[in-house]
Amino acid sequence: MRRNICVVIGYDGTDYNGFQSQPGGNTVQDKLEDALLTLTGENIRVTGSGRTDAGVHARSMHVNFRTDSHIPASRWTLALNARLPDDIVVHSAFEVPDDFHARRTASRKTYRYTINCNKNPDVFRRKYEFHHHTPLNVEAMREGLQHLIGEHDFSSFTSPLSTKPSHIRTLYEARLETEHRYDVFSSAMAEADAKRYPGKQRGIIHLYVTGNGFLYNMVRIIAGTMMQVGEGKIAPEHISDILNARDRSRAGPTAVPHGLTLWNVEYGETLPLTDHV
Amino acid sequence: MRRNICVVIGYDGTDYNGFQSQPGGNTVQDKLEDALLTLTGENIRVTGSGRTDAGVHARSMHVNFRTDSHIPASRWTLALNARLPDDIVVHSAFEVPDDFHARRTASRKTYRYTINCNKNPDVFRRKYEFHHHTPLNVEAMREGLQHLIGEHDFSSFTSPLSTKPSHIRTLYEARLETEHRYDVFSSAMAEADAKRYPGKQRGIIHLYVTGNGFLYNMVRIIAGTMMQVGEGKIAPEHISDILNARDRSRAGPTAVPHGLTLWNVEYGETLPLTDHV
Repeated sequence: MRRNICVVIGYDGTDYNGFQSQPGGNTVQDKLEDALLTLTGENIRVTGSGRTDAGVHARSMHVNFRTDSHIPASRWTLALNARLPDDIVVHSAFEVPDDFHARRTASRKTYRYTINCNKNPDVFRRKYEFHHHTPLNVEAMREGLQHLIGEHDFSSFTSPLSTKPSHIRTLYEARLETEHRYDVFSSAMAEADAKRYPGKQRGIIHLYVTGNGFLYNMVRIIAGTMMQVGEGKIAPEHISDILNARDRSRAGPTAVPHGLTLWNVEYGETLPLTDHV
Repeated sequence: MRRNICVVIGYDGTDYNGFQSQPGGNTVQDKLEDALLTLTGENIRVTGSGRTDAGVHARSMHVNFRTDSHIPASRWTLALNARLPDDIVVHSAFEVPDDFHARRTASRKTYRYTINCNKNPDVFRRKYEFHHHTPLNVEAMREGLQHLIGEHDFSSFTSPLSTKPSHIRTLYEARLETEHRYDVFSSAMAEADAKRYPGKQRGIIHLYVTGNGFLYNMVRIIAGTMMQVGEGKIAPEHISDILNARDRSRAGPTAVPHGLTLWNVEYGETLPLTDHV
């Protein structure tokens, strides 16, 4: 019987047309399949735990594939990394049960959207976070986010291009974490800032959402809407109305892709195989 | 009288031939002077607080220049950022006394060299840290570093190409900070690792050195030597002998440039103007 191998990968999506193969080429899937071909001599098709759009990143994404190769599981990581470009990395590899399917078996997915509200962009993180020039009201954003938790019809938070038969999804967690990071700022400027933007803060905001599945553009629309909450354009309690309207035009704009990272995918009891150190 | 303006900049050095202008072009200085020309119409020469080699980064570096322009200090940041590529950022700008000189007035400089000892490289930090495939003995490195603190002749830790009349410099501080960062690792692999590399750890190591000045390649040779200490190739107490030998061939190799970042430059009482938030 052919073996079922699962690899956990990460990638910098900046230079790719997303994860999934498409006519235009230059996708993460293409690079993985090229590496597998040179390693095994087999034309292998891989299955990712999800699609990511052009410019979106992944910190930890599971991918599985079938192979006749006898390479021990412990050797796949190094062998594939030697054949992959340096913006894609295989973190680990292991053999999985025959019925394991990276997308269908997944129980929870977590995405992170990062917003830099410092005065200036961070040259070292510029490809992985959106630079929002003005401060945001983090408490209002936290409050707004709570209305999205639970099982809902997320039609207001998906692209009209979505072809899914149902827009009902469950959001298990939605939280904001803030981070202070280098920004040169005189006391005088900080005071002017506090006066000009009352109740708003500078710094880095990481928005984490965990759910059983996400619709097309869903996290980016949540991020774009939360930025309007943080700007004071949408009241936090208004998020429920937007959700109930099931109308994309009621939510905020779709945030740019480069701030988004597929953070983690969980498989419940199916894959208790790896620790994240 | 012409004004003396100081700007604090940061840059991702990956795509540049270092800070300082040179015949081959494509330096950070060139980009700054181009931006100043389009902004002021003046051919301005800037002075950096130090030179960085090709591929080396700067988180915070002071640069000063003279101008006849009447642009208020508070406007320089935004105006220059609009004219600079996105891998160079101006953090702040202010008018300084006529005798301020970004290099000569500097009292202390801090560099950071980052070593990633995780099993796999980090795709998001790959341009800013050196990936050392095996674990290192952090305590031995800490011990070795202590021997470098103080006033010494650093001839063993500079390139033979150095043309400085004196190799005596003072290192005020030298310390290691460790950071745990995502690495997928099974318990079985962690155990095998502990057996294979006793006394050594995985994770991220940030090596910070603060001194009154640094010789050509000095921080990169310190980093390369400390990695050999961490590997167990050089005993920590042997660092004193290497220093006393005043012989470049006794120290370890020059670590690759991309792990190095000019972290901060201090001007004592001269520039108590900015807070780092």
